[in-house]
Amino acid sequence: MKRWVIVMTVLAGCQSVPAGDRTAELLDVALKENQAYERLSYLCDRIGNRLSGSENLNRAIDWAVETMKKDGLSNVRKQKVMVPVWVRGEENAELVEPARHKLTILGLGGSVPTPPGGIEADVVVVKSFDELSDKVKGKIVLYNVPFTQYGPTVQYRTNGASRAAKFGAVASLVRSVTPVSLCTPHTGMMRYDEALPKIPTAAVTIEDAELMQRMQDRGRRVRARLSMGCKTLPDAESANVIGEVPGETDEIVLIGGHLDSWDVGTGAHDDGGPCVSVMEAARIIVKLGLKPRRTIRVVLFTNEENGLRGGQGYRDQTLKEKHMVALESDSGVGSVVGFGLTIADKAKEERGLAAVRQIAAQMKPIGELAVKAGGGGADIGPLGKDGVPTMSLNPSMELYWHIHHTHADTMDKIDPVKLSQHVAAIAVMAYSLANLPKPLGE
Amino acid sequence: MKRWVIVMTVLAGCQSVPAGDRTAELLDVALKENQAYERLSYLCDRIGNRLSGSENLNRAIDWAVETMKKDGLSNVRKQKVMVPVWVRGEENAELVEPARHKLTILGLGGSVPTPPGGIEADVVVVKSFDELSDKVKGKIVLYNVPFTQYGPTVQYRTNGASRAAKFGAVASLVRSVTPVSLCTPHTGMMRYDEALPKIPTAAVTIEDAELMQRMQDRGRRVRARLSMGCKTLPDAESANVIGEVPGETDEIVLIGGHLDSWDVGTGAHDDGGPCVSVMEAARIIVKLGLKPRRTIRVVLFTNEENGLRGGQGYRDQTLKEKHMVALESDSGVGSVVGFGLTIADKAKEERGLAAVRQIAAQMKPIGELAVKAGGGGADIGPLGKDGVPTMSLNPSMELYWHIHHTHADTMDKIDPVKLSQHVAAIAVMAYSLANLPKPLGE
Repeated sequence: MKRWVIVMTVLAGCQSVPAGDRTAELLDVALKENQAYERLSYLCDRIGNRLSGSENLNRAIDWAVETMKKDGLSNVRKQKVMVPVWVRGEENAELVEPARHKLTILGLGGSVPTPPGGIEADVVVVKSFDELSDKVKGKIVLYNVPFTQYGPTVQYRTNGASRAAKFGAVASLVRSVTPVSLCTPHTGMMRYDEALPKIPTAAVTIEDAELMQRMQDRGRRVRARLSMGCKTLPDAESANVIGEVPGETDEIVLIGGHLDSWDVGTGAHDDGGPCVSVMEAARIIVKLGLKPRRTIRVVLFTNEENGLRGGQGYRDQTLKEKHMVALESDSGVGSVVGFGLTIADKAKEERGLAAVRQIAAQMKPIGELAVKAGGGGADIGPLGKDGVPTMSLNPSMELYWHIHHTHADTMDKIDPVKLSQHVAAIAVMAYSLANLPKPLGE
Repeated sequence: MKRWVIVMTVLAGCQSVPAGDRTAELLDVALKENQAYERLSYLCDRIGNRLSGSENLNRAIDWAVETMKKDGLSNVRKQKVMVPVWVRGEENAELVEPARHKLTILGLGGSVPTPPGGIEADVVVVKSFDELSDKVKGKIVLYNVPFTQYGPTVQYRTNGASRAAKFGAVASLVRSVTPVSLCTPHTGMMRYDEALPKIPTAAVTIEDAELMQRMQDRGRRVRARLSMGCKTLPDAESANVIGEVPGETDEIVLIGGHLDSWDVGTGAHDDGGPCVSVMEAARIIVKLGLKPRRTIRVVLFTNEENGLRGGQGYRDQTLKEKHMVALESDSGVGSVVGFGLTIADKAKEERGLAAVRQIAAQMKPIGELAVKAGGGGADIGPLGKDGVPTMSLNPSMELYWHIHHTHADTMDKIDPVKLSQHVAAIAVMAYSLANLPKPLGE
């Protein structure tokens, strides 16, 4: 075995990219023969959506363990973590002044329920946190902030309830975080400031947000009823699913996605597609009998959507392990555009980017891929804080924001060819990273 | 007054388009000063959707009468017609085999309800009527026919129930008639063959149609539960709303849209926008003090969506009147693309098209408009059968099919600039047609 490592290292030293000799084969098989689409169909159509603490997520975890074992991965295991359990319950909202309209809502994950019988209050529509003041006391605040990019817009979903509660609001609504709507509410995570009263909070559609905006702009009293029966149960046991293609050293190349989803749609793009892509990449590496220098570890994290306990738990339980790099795919499975890389030390990041660019240059059958500074993911964030280089696979996200956290994140939005490209890109990247002569960035 | 007519006629004879002298002014005012957007907001936001027989439609009819009177139109009146009353009720559907999934449905207008307790049956997915056979007996037929154009696709919505009932099906579902979906069901009219059993029928989303298709394609038994509490009540009194800009002759230039809508969304594009466009066109003609040679008659038809009683009733009650032409706008208020014209006598149609093209050529501030053979509308169909030349205003319909008959046909989809262009195009067309030296096509 040692001899193999030496030969491999010597070979690697002579080539621009160490895994070059098998890359073409890996690409070819991944693009032509992979089973990702069928697997994703099973996950989405047969198991369904997979919110933390749900029976569906438990089934998905068991399915992933069995599947990785069948694929010939090694050390397949569940890594236990406790996760929050939020259950949606009945939800209803209605505009009562100046006209009656049913409002289409989705409660935000983690929200408290309304009191029994619901809340009826005047609505104050604001365009930013700056407009909050004592005038919202006793009222429902609606953040009607059009989508620009995810980061600047999502803060109103995440922090809107507590920011409004600070001024005495009784509930908060947020315009769904999306550029496009066909009466489409988008749920997602929110966080309470524990020092402030917890008020119920839900997403409304662009249609309804604009309706209330127009009414307020015309000087009308806008009044709504909101009823949410959600509840937070005690934490439940869940697990990250781990499987490996064992290497010759103690270094790890992590490739991952998150197996949980919201409780609407079936999480086809978020994050089922990426999960089956990393599983399938590993399966093909095993099938081809490739022996990476470093261990390629597949991690399907739990609870990315509403707690990040999977990512934190993984980090806490692997403190003694040596991660050379962690790559997360959590932006859906649109056309592969490239990769991102973050290393805290910018000189190392430059060297790392050069190495990743060399690998990406071998993926011409997929396209001309862009490798950029800045890459990671929510689940590998804790590893990144510990200094592990983090990477993302970056796809086109045009469709992604339209369906993100909605009933419409379903299989019909999946292009099997693009999904294959994800498998191929991850397979080549993981195998090549695992065989780099020196650690990434060194 | 007679002298004015003579002068006008002489002037008209000297010009390529008779109304030319005031067209620029009419265009200018319609593009700059019209109130269509505010009016449409009131209709949609404050009154809401307007299904035949609903209180909302009655309110809309009263509002239209008052508004036309305030605008200074003449002979403003309600023209009574009886309309069918279909009430949606509770609707639920669920896939039960091979996995449990909530299905998103909208019952089709006119459907019978399911028996109490609903229907549970196997689903047979077909791609055309040709696939129907005795194998659908006792089953639910799903027509999964992707959108190509409205005509070829909508037949599965309109006739699907009876075609399936002929072979013993117990219910029928139809993939929503749309090219795009964000879990978006599209309702619409259906018709029963009175000689066959009436089975309940509903639209499903593209997402759910494709889900059942995938399951069937994999050889799985697909089984669903369907529950619909809709009912058909006795016919109710409704009315077409009519108002006029009186002319000097007994000829009529009709411009119209339909005031009713489906019971989801608020009918902003279908057909609220066109309704306010024709109302506003007439208001501006009156405001400018223009005296057309022929009477310009605004007709807001009732019951276009689920019965066409307004169009038929109008025709039956105006048999003695002389319609030179009838123009209907019922394709939403996207960018104005042009006009269509149908005259049964093709030589007349050619001459008519030439005249309409001359008028359209004066609308350069709106754009280069295309005038094509083939134009009309559902409400003016009965007039067309009687030999009246029929016209349509043709807008861009890219967005239209995405929101047609859905919860998403709302004010936020309305572009005020494009709406103004509709007002301007109709105002100039109506006024110019009313002043043609000879009847259209002669």
